[in-house]
Amino acid sequence: METYKTLEDRFARISSIADAVGILQWDAETLMPEGAADSRSNQLATLKGIAHELLTAPDTGDLLGQAGQDSDQLDDWQRANLREMRRVYLHAAAVPADLVEASSRAVSRAELVWPEARQNGDFALLLPHLSQVLALQRQIGQAKGEALGLSPYDALLDSYDPGLRQAAIDPLFAELGAELPDLIQEAQERQKGFPAIQPLNGPFPVDDQRRIGEQLMQAVGFDFNRGRLDVSLHPFCGGSTGDVRITTRYDEANFMNALMGVLHETGHALYEQGRPEDWHRQPVGLARGMSLHESQSLLIEMQACRSWEFVTYLAPLVRETFQGEGLAWNPENLHRILTRVEPGFIRVDADEITYPAHILVRYKLEKALIAGVLQIDDLPSAFNEEVKKLLGLTVPNDSLGCLQDIHWPGGAWGYFPTYTLGAVTAAQLFEAACHADSSILPGLTSGDFGPLRGWLRSNVHSKGSLVTTDELLMGATGRPLSADVFRTHLRERYLAR
Amino acid sequence: METYKTLEDRFARISSIADAVGILQWDAETLMPEGAADSRSNQLATLKGIAHELLTAPDTGDLLGQAGQDSDQLDDWQRANLREMRRVYLHAAAVPADLVEASSRAVSRAELVWPEARQNGDFALLLPHLSQVLALQRQIGQAKGEALGLSPYDALLDSYDPGLRQAAIDPLFAELGAELPDLIQEAQERQKGFPAIQPLNGPFPVDDQRRIGEQLMQAVGFDFNRGRLDVSLHPFCGGSTGDVRITTRYDEANFMNALMGVLHETGHALYEQGRPEDWHRQPVGLARGMSLHESQSLLIEMQACRSWEFVTYLAPLVRETFQGEGLAWNPENLHRILTRVEPGFIRVDADEITYPAHILVRYKLEKALIAGVLQIDDLPSAFNEEVKKLLGLTVPNDSLGCLQDIHWPGGAWGYFPTYTLGAVTAAQLFEAACHADSSILPGLTSGDFGPLRGWLRSNVHSKGSLVTTDELLMGATGRPLSADVFRTHLRERYLAR
Repeated sequence: METYKTLEDRFARISSIADAVGILQWDAETLMPEGAADSRSNQLATLKGIAHELLTAPDTGDLLGQAGQDSDQLDDWQRANLREMRRVYLHAAAVPADLVEASSRAVSRAELVWPEARQNGDFALLLPHLSQVLALQRQIGQAKGEALGLSPYDALLDSYDPGLRQAAIDPLFAELGAELPDLIQEAQERQKGFPAIQPLNGPFPVDDQRRIGEQLMQAVGFDFNRGRLDVSLHPFCGGSTGDVRITTRYDEANFMNALMGVLHETGHALYEQGRPEDWHRQPVGLARGMSLHESQSLLIEMQACRSWEFVTYLAPLVRETFQGEGLAWNPENLHRILTRVEPGFIRVDADEITYPAHILVRYKLEKALIAGVLQIDDLPSAFNEEVKKLLGLTVPNDSLGCLQDIHWPGGAWGYFPTYTLGAVTAAQLFEAACHADSSILPGLTSGDFGPLRGWLRSNVHSKGSLVTTDELLMGATGRPLSADVFRTHLRERYLAR
Repeated sequence: METYKTLEDRFARISSIADAVGILQWDAETLMPEGAADSRSNQLATLKGIAHELLTAPDTGDLLGQAGQDSDQLDDWQRANLREMRRVYLHAAAVPADLVEASSRAVSRAELVWPEARQNGDFALLLPHLSQVLALQRQIGQAKGEALGLSPYDALLDSYDPGLRQAAIDPLFAELGAELPDLIQEAQERQKGFPAIQPLNGPFPVDDQRRIGEQLMQAVGFDFNRGRLDVSLHPFCGGSTGDVRITTRYDEANFMNALMGVLHETGHALYEQGRPEDWHRQPVGLARGMSLHESQSLLIEMQACRSWEFVTYLAPLVRETFQGEGLAWNPENLHRILTRVEPGFIRVDADEITYPAHILVRYKLEKALIAGVLQIDDLPSAFNEEVKKLLGLTVPNDSLGCLQDIHWPGGAWGYFPTYTLGAVTAAQLFEAACHADSSILPGLTSGDFGPLRGWLRSNVHSKGSLVTTDELLMGATGRPLSADVFRTHLRERYLAR
């Protein structure tokens, strides 16, 4: 018991360092003056280095072993916490310090070159750096895989999403991949029969946009006593678990993107704010994984806030806020804007139905690159081929192709699939929620998220990392993850209505 | 040399932790949502604890000893850095961990009770907590004194201001104390002969106040690429050396207080931004001490920005900003506002000439309390007696007396004298600067701080902690610190003009 308490103390310190890092990173993206970048880098590198040292201290392994032997003295929560401690430790300890450092340096260099390479569609410029990042990611996957008894790619997946395996993704993505091209085409065909979309004409003052964003955050359930909304170049949900800071970017010509972005980040924030406060500084209190995290943002943005029910509430609200006039502000037109299908080259601009196609392309390729069956030089042509196959588009240059995302130069390999697994999970959770509580959907017509939030609190947020993702989904929806509900959802929203 | 480099690495990490703490504390005072207070406390306690552990690691003492033996291999800068490392280490290592913790707990409790005690003038409420804080400060002074070969009070002084000793303060403050009561009275008498002060009538919109504040910060030389101006309840200069964040508080009925506050903090900020960037993460790059730091803020606010020369520049600027009309906006009236003498109970509201009297009261009493020749129960009556003697005022209740400042409950004993030493130093530096460069004063009439800033950069800011305060003053002004110039300054500004 004493051993376990020693571990709790150590992980509480590590957690507070991570919280500090979260706030400092948020500050760097929102307020920090440019000239402070080097100083901030030193702060972040120092804090991350110290957290890593605390985590991988020579005695941590022994303490974990000993606490495991005495685990009959622990209650269920403590045992789950110990399991999560071990997981975090194994991931960190598996990678030798010099490999961590080499990878971090390679990533810094690649991220520095990437903006110019993307701007000019110059893959050759990025190639040597990307090649280096990939080589080191393969080594990291190898090292973690050996420690965890996993293949390299599974080991990388596991660092973003505990328990996620290629063997579970492959059939699910295969099913989607077989269906998506037809689905996208049918949806587009059907769309042609709709009345033309009426544009919403601005300008939409930033102050009004912020006000309605905050109003909807409040409705969804964001706790402003433990969080903020600010502006950054790239929207994100950051800060620390006890102080959740989401960001957006305003465009006076288009309020809808920022508003939907705010609702997306609010979904993430609800998950952060909804985990039990007294678990915050322990590994069992962490979010369960990136798929589940993304499911919470997509459940709010895609399932709830692009539903017909919510749009009937949203339409008069935005009309009043922006003093809109005419048919363009009708719920019918707004809903058509919010569910428009249009295949495009850029993942982050994709709609709900084409987005998975972008992910399938990236998943297939990064898996092959990590496995060594695809060479990095062949990435552009392989990328364009997959886009053609799934989206029917001919990529004209690498800016619109394999250079568009920062993930690969940024060293985030094994991350992409969690976006679409998040979408699939969101559909399954939302259906279960609406089934369990018939007041959820009607609630949305009056902006009442209480019932939905209550269900998410009990079935998802409050669990933290107490159970595995599979167990959580079984408990919440009565079945393991499958693409069924998501596919039905897409058919109903884009083909049936 | 290798030993020395090991120390440099360690102190660089400690410095980056301190920088992170500075930003997180700034955030807590400016933006943090209330509900995040506990989480932030954990972050700060964790980071400060880790910095303390790094500093007092078992081998730090040995490394310092060994590097000292090999110091013939070091250059002057490195030797000075080693000296400063030793100083920081001795202060930290002198106090046993349980005493640090006990003191920190006692301070937290006293700070929690203090607002209510102050509000109700209830000294008895604070007494047990203040008594505890004092007892622990005496122990800390004792422990540091033994390690440094100093008396307890000198050891406390030394933690805020390296090299500062009671023996240097006593005669200087005695000189001021002998003169102040008459000086204050004469200044008031003389003031009676002035035309009545014309009030500046608002409201003064916050946006305009911020704009002119930023404009003047720019003129003085604040680098917005490495710093910010924001709002907090209590104005301060914080953040980190590479990212200096000053704050103010706006009052739509009175722009002058905030504006002078901004100029004061800008003086602090210039010192932070003016130290050599590549020294930032080493002890030799630290500010020399609190007296010198305060001298930089008071030199800008009191010496430069309340000078007749600057007021002739300021008057048309504020008139235009706030669209002021009438005689109230003349430089003569503004200067009378900015140099008005009015004895009052509250230190932070005091004018330039009565402020030192407030400090002399506190210095005398805290010295006696630490020495044990005054009992804490007798503080209120002793405080009121001194105020009567120096300011001629009868304190009606302890809210306006010994309960007004957070310093004592906050554990900042040995800090008060640095305010007035700062004022004395500022006068001596400013006179030397104007003597060395005759374009400084004329520059102020057109808002050109370039010459003054240049002199401060060369003679003060660029020195960091390379030399002692005494050496710095000798180099910059040709003589050791004395009250002469300050006394002359007060007579010239308040009696002669």
